[in-house]
Amino acid sequence: MGIVLGPNRYGKAETRVVRVVRDGERHELRDLNVSVALAGDLDATHLTGDNAGVLPTDTQKNTVYAFAKEHGIDQPEDFALRLARHFVSSQPTIHSARVHIEQYGWRRLGPHSFQRDGAETRTATVTVDGAGEWVVAGLADLVLLNSTDSEFWGYVKDPYTTLPETKDRVLATEVSARWRFAGPADWAASYEGVKAALVAAFVETYSFSLQQTLYAMGRRVLEERPEVVEVRLALPNKHHLLVDLAPFGLDNPNEVFVAADRPYGLIEGTVLRSDALSYDGAF
Amino acid sequence: MGIVLGPNRYGKAETRVVRVVRDGERHELRDLNVSVALAGDLDATHLTGDNAGVLPTDTQKNTVYAFAKEHGIDQPEDFALRLARHFVSSQPTIHSARVHIEQYGWRRLGPHSFQRDGAETRTATVTVDGAGEWVVAGLADLVLLNSTDSEFWGYVKDPYTTLPETKDRVLATEVSARWRFAGPADWAASYEGVKAALVAAFVETYSFSLQQTLYAMGRRVLEERPEVVEVRLALPNKHHLLVDLAPFGLDNPNEVFVAADRPYGLIEGTVLRSDALSYDGAF
Amino acid sequence: MGIVLGPNRYGKAETRVVRVVRDGERHELRDLNVSVALAGDLDATHLTGDNAGVLPTDTQKNTVYAFAKEHGIDQPEDFALRLARHFVSSQPTIHSARVHIEQYGWRRLGPHSFQRDGAETRTATVTVDGAGEWVVAGLADLVLLNSTDSEFWGYVKDPYTTLPETKDRVLATEVSARWRFAGPADWAASYEGVKAALVAAFVETYSFSLQQTLYAMGRRVLEERPEVVEVRLALPNKHHLLVDLAPFGLDNPNEVFVAADRPYGLIEGTVLRSDALSYDGAF
Amino acid sequence: MGIVLGPNRYGKAETRVVRVVRDGERHELRDLNVSVALAGDLDATHLTGDNAGVLPTDTQKNTVYAFAKEHGIDQPEDFALRLARHFVSSQPTIHSARVHIEQYGWRRLGPHSFQRDGAETRTATVTVDGAGEWVVAGLADLVLLNSTDSEFWGYVKDPYTTLPETKDRVLATEVSARWRFAGPADWAASYEGVKAALVAAFVETYSFSLQQTLYAMGRRVLEERPEVVEVRLALPNKHHLLVDLAPFGLDNPNEVFVAADRPYGLIEGTVLRSDALSYDGAF
Repeated sequence: MGIVLGPNRYGKAETRVVRVVRDGERHELRDLNVSVALAGDLDATHLTGDNAGVLPTDTQKNTVYAFAKEHGIDQPEDFALRLARHFVSSQPTIHSARVHIEQYGWRRLGPHSFQRDGAETRTATVTVDGAGEWVVAGLADLVLLNSTDSEFWGYVKDPYTTLPETKDRVLATEVSARWRFAGPADWAASYEGVKAALVAAFVETYSFSLQQTLYAMGRRVLEERPEVVEVRLALPNKHHLLVDLAPFGLDNPNEVFVAADRPYGLIEGTVLRSDALSYDGAF
Repeated sequence: MGIVLGPNRYGKAETRVVRVVRDGERHELRDLNVSVALAGDLDATHLTGDNAGVLPTDTQKNTVYAFAKEHGIDQPEDFALRLARHFVSSQPTIHSARVHIEQYGWRRLGPHSFQRDGAETRTATVTVDGAGEWVVAGLADLVLLNSTDSEFWGYVKDPYTTLPETKDRVLATEVSARWRFAGPADWAASYEGVKAALVAAFVETYSFSLQQTLYAMGRRVLEERPEVVEVRLALPNKHHLLVDLAPFGLDNPNEVFVAADRPYGLIEGTVLRSDALSYDGAF
Repeated sequence: MGIVLGPNRYGKAETRVVRVVRDGERHELRDLNVSVALAGDLDATHLTGDNAGVLPTDTQKNTVYAFAKEHGIDQPEDFALRLARHFVSSQPTIHSARVHIEQYGWRRLGPHSFQRDGAETRTATVTVDGAGEWVVAGLADLVLLNSTDSEFWGYVKDPYTTLPETKDRVLATEVSARWRFAGPADWAASYEGVKAALVAAFVETYSFSLQQTLYAMGRRVLEERPEVVEVRLALPNKHHLLVDLAPFGLDNPNEVFVAADRPYGLIEGTVLRSDALSYDGAF
Repeated sequence: MGIVLGPNRYGKAETRVVRVVRDGERHELRDLNVSVALAGDLDATHLTGDNAGVLPTDTQKNTVYAFAKEHGIDQPEDFALRLARHFVSSQPTIHSARVHIEQYGWRRLGPHSFQRDGAETRTATVTVDGAGEWVVAGLADLVLLNSTDSEFWGYVKDPYTTLPETKDRVLATEVSARWRFAGPADWAASYEGVKAALVAAFVETYSFSLQQTLYAMGRRVLEERPEVVEVRLALPNKHHLLVDLAPFGLDNPNEVFVAADRPYGLIEGTVLRSDALSYDGAF
């Protein structure tokens, strides 16, 4: 009936690395935020402070920078895999390595000039352990809005219901998506393809609920991208509330809205292939 | 070999409710941020846009406000349980309700005057479903620092190691803790007791690694609070880097530090009773 | 030798208004954050709590929404002028009105579908008082980077200097710019022209200091845009620090950098026409 | 009719320095965020890129760290004055130095253990130039709330007014205050005295407008602290909106509120001694 150490991991979070590739006048830029988490045989450091099995998080940071130079940074999935394999294979005490990367986009202004592109953040989460390798790609911070083609009615009414039904509303969300691969893929092409599928489904779905739009987005990805087996989406409903202009003698036929901060609806869901191998790792 | 809907949930996030209790001149204040997530029989809204089973998130928000009036707000665990039970028991399509609350502290300045206390945020996460009720309490934003009694040495050296070993360093972290109860408890007393145990263990542990401190914190909670069966901690290592003053002809015997933003070590771990029932729900 | 009330103002800050213009299938979108500040004969409310001269901030918010419907929102400068003129002309106690607007960009995805464009935020600050009208336009959040064509050397060395001189570095900044007009202008065309001038000067300047780049940016705006009389720039030096890879046996010829958060250099400067009328109002 | 360089300055912003004083077992802690801005004879670097008069911002950062060791950090005003005097006196090209400091509080948990105290942030802004020295102290992030003793009525009604008058409301604000000294003072005692005066005036003022409360706060400081000649306050009205519970058959006699994020009223004002020397420098 004792007290025991349960699941644990440690690592260096948010190592910001920028890699310039200089091919003569024309430069390329990679801008990443890399977080490493390692798990393994770490009872000693927790129980007695014996650090013989600990690879310091400072060393993990150094490895990120050294690998950026030695191997370059092509796609974030490749860079994450390289790092995760290195930690697991080089340290016997480390049984599992998870590397999460955020990649920030830059648009080219000239041969060696760039502008940060705030359109969305690309992510990659890789787990390597004795049982195999898992790759999850993703995106965040992609804000989409349909100014019509969205209804919401026919829902449950209870004593706390005051929301009027509507046949026309603004539907806006900040897409946070993660998708899991069956195996290696053309990461760059896949990313562009998945993003395009998500956006197209949002734009083209005549929506009766944000849940319906969520499912359409996940389904579209799986239909168009055979390399993807599972999609998880978190869609905050960024409410645009119709302003009551009647006190000022004005109509408001879906023209003037308050963009509200809080509270917000939050819709989360998974769409997957029925034959996808089950997976309960990092997403 | 089709495409299917996997796990999903929805709800209203971040409903900010402030409840004043007026007992004559002397007022009491409760300041909460309430997030609800419901799961159940929601295939129709995802697949066809039929919302017959959907309790709108707007109604969930209304329920938070109405319950704050009808039942008052005592401890966040009680308020969360009341809300979660209501959603599951009143809606046949809802099989599981999770309510997460952040409670912000205020210190009294007078009978009806208060100052926001930024010391820490108290949290409660409650899940109610057909199988039972689970209560997880927690705290966040609690920043602690020991200016000595921390060493770090004896770790793995590899070709990417540059960190010097140290017998004296600053150890600082922002505690994020969650703890699970075996059953109902005196929530208020338990919260104060757990917080005191976490702080005492941080202060009193002569530390050889932040992992060791983490384990000591979790262990202390379980030793002192029989109502708690599991503690999960996420401790960022808020690095305080010794400044090299040698170029200016100055020594720096652990006196002047850079408080760094990024990157940071992140230590995550669980400490639990060996006979705790297993639980894979919300934490 | 008494105590007196000095300069003061009040208003509603951060009213978030989204205006949809529905021209059949094809919609237009304006997304603003509007802040109003009024000044005038407000001694009574400060000294005695007599609010007879106070137009409530709630009413100011309502006016923003009503004007969005009544008059539409074309350029933020026009909308700000309309609001400011209204407050000054309709309330005898209000002698000065300042309206500050942030406009968020959206790129079109379809006839009524949009994606938030995070490239930069457009601003307008308008002041109307008895003496006239002033319009200041601006932009923020525009992050630019040159991966070469930047040197820094020849500076003062003192006993606290450790920075090595460099003939090649990354130069990156987040542009915050405000520019003042001599009078009415084609706001939309002017905004695009100023932005293009700022970006072109950043890209094309071979830089020996961020101050030099700042001056080149301001100068270029004044050369290309006759309607502008003064430009103020605040340019944080977003340091990209070269990583020392020597411990790992690796060279680092300006290829791998840490993108640092803090501290940062901050360069602030004004470039103006020598015959510009002096102005000490809101910028 | 040329283009000229106007006012400009540069410096290192947000140098985070933590200073531990070790008096045997018992340690003291100072935790600062220091921003330096220098102005002077800087035309050359702007116009030609000649940096002969530029003291690099990196050197400014080093000076902060070296001074923390050489001279220690007692009160932030003293540390800022020491830095500002150094820059002006040691560099002939620098005519003015402004040092702004944020000091973060820690409460003691043991001889060398501390908890970050989030109650408020203390600030100091010092300007040193050929004409003299100016010291402005301040505080930020101090959130205060009265749950009654606040009314708002008797204001202007216009066609855009919908706000109902009230004889009882919640009044809450996040105090941002700056105060100017006539000359040297006991900085520590003064800070505690000013803070106490601000809080007492907020608590004790039966308020008919936030402007009235603002004036009472500034007046109280000047009445109680002879060393202070001017107080500037910025008080956001953190609206607590009464929830309409009538649809649920419930009264709401000022008990349940929405704590709103945006928009918010913003009240700004100055209270000063009638014989205070005029000052248009940094505040």
